[in-house]
Amino acid sequence: MQEQHYNHVLVAVDLTRDSGLVLQRAINIARRNQDARVSIIHTLEPLGFAYGGDIPMDLTSIQDQLDSHARERLAEVADPYGIPREDQHVVVGMPDAEIHRFAGEHGVDLIVVGSHGRTGFALLLGSTSTGVLHGAKCDVLAVRVGADGEATE
Amino acid sequence: MQEQHYNHVLVAVDLTRDSGLVLQRAINIARRNQDARVSIIHTLEPLGFAYGGDIPMDLTSIQDQLDSHARERLAEVADPYGIPREDQHVVVGMPDAEIHRFAGEHGVDLIVVGSHGRTGFALLLGSTSTGVLHGAKCDVLAVRVGADGEATE
Repeated sequence: MQEQHYNHVLVAVDLTRDSGLVLQRAINIARRNQDARVSIIHTLEPLGFAYGGDIPMDLTSIQDQLDSHARERLAEVADPYGIPREDQHVVVGMPDAEIHRFAGEHGVDLIVVGSHGRTGFALLLGSTSTGVLHGAKCDVLAVRVGADGEATE
Repeated sequence: MQEQHYNHVLVAVDLTRDSGLVLQRAINIARRNQDARVSIIHTLEPLGFAYGGDIPMDLTSIQDQLDSHARERLAEVADPYGIPREDQHVVVGMPDAEIHRFAGEHGVDLIVVGSHGRTGFALLLGSTSTGVLHGAKCDVLAVRVGADGEATE
């Protein structure tokens, strides 16, 4: 019988308050897979995508501040769950592409994302969960979270 | 610690040759969840969506033939895995909406779909996996299958 065994679980979080819940679920899965490695990633869209081109000022320092802020927030989410800092990643780029790239380069065989279930809200969030699924080279688990999602836990 | 326990796993299949693989994965998950119930569903888009309106002829008998054919194909996929006929469902409608409706009405807490990973091919397939994720009220696992997906097994 074919039994899927995951070696490396990547949790993609948006740093909203549900991120800890999504991480917890990923950790549970990792434990059931002989303590698979768990990495956590947050993607920041580059400022240039929104403001670039016409604006001559250097956005590097602002980007650095955002990056630094995101790293702190990610640590607040991941540290309590014992995720080592070297497995906490903040990357700048388009979420889908960066998550797929990271997964490919690090032998990730399961990506776990939060799913908010409400179409409108999901769209507001940039539909990371649906975007990640699209084009993924490995399994993707969308964990139902959010205001009307507690019933699934 | 929060541990997700699934009671009813719904496998949505497109009846391509990967359907058995997706079903097998769902069965594995069900076994790890104290033999959760496994239902399998295939959705047929109503002929009327494509041909309706301007065409006066009655498509009912053709729809019935398609429906009957789909039931046979679904049984060929599901019978070897011991899925009882009453848990094999062919429904007519838009895939996302029908799968969500079925899930809501039958207490499904995990939907398993196949994911082909290649953007173009996924689009050709109507992107059922991404569509199902969008708006789902429960967890969704997209299982990586397809020509370049065997590596994940």
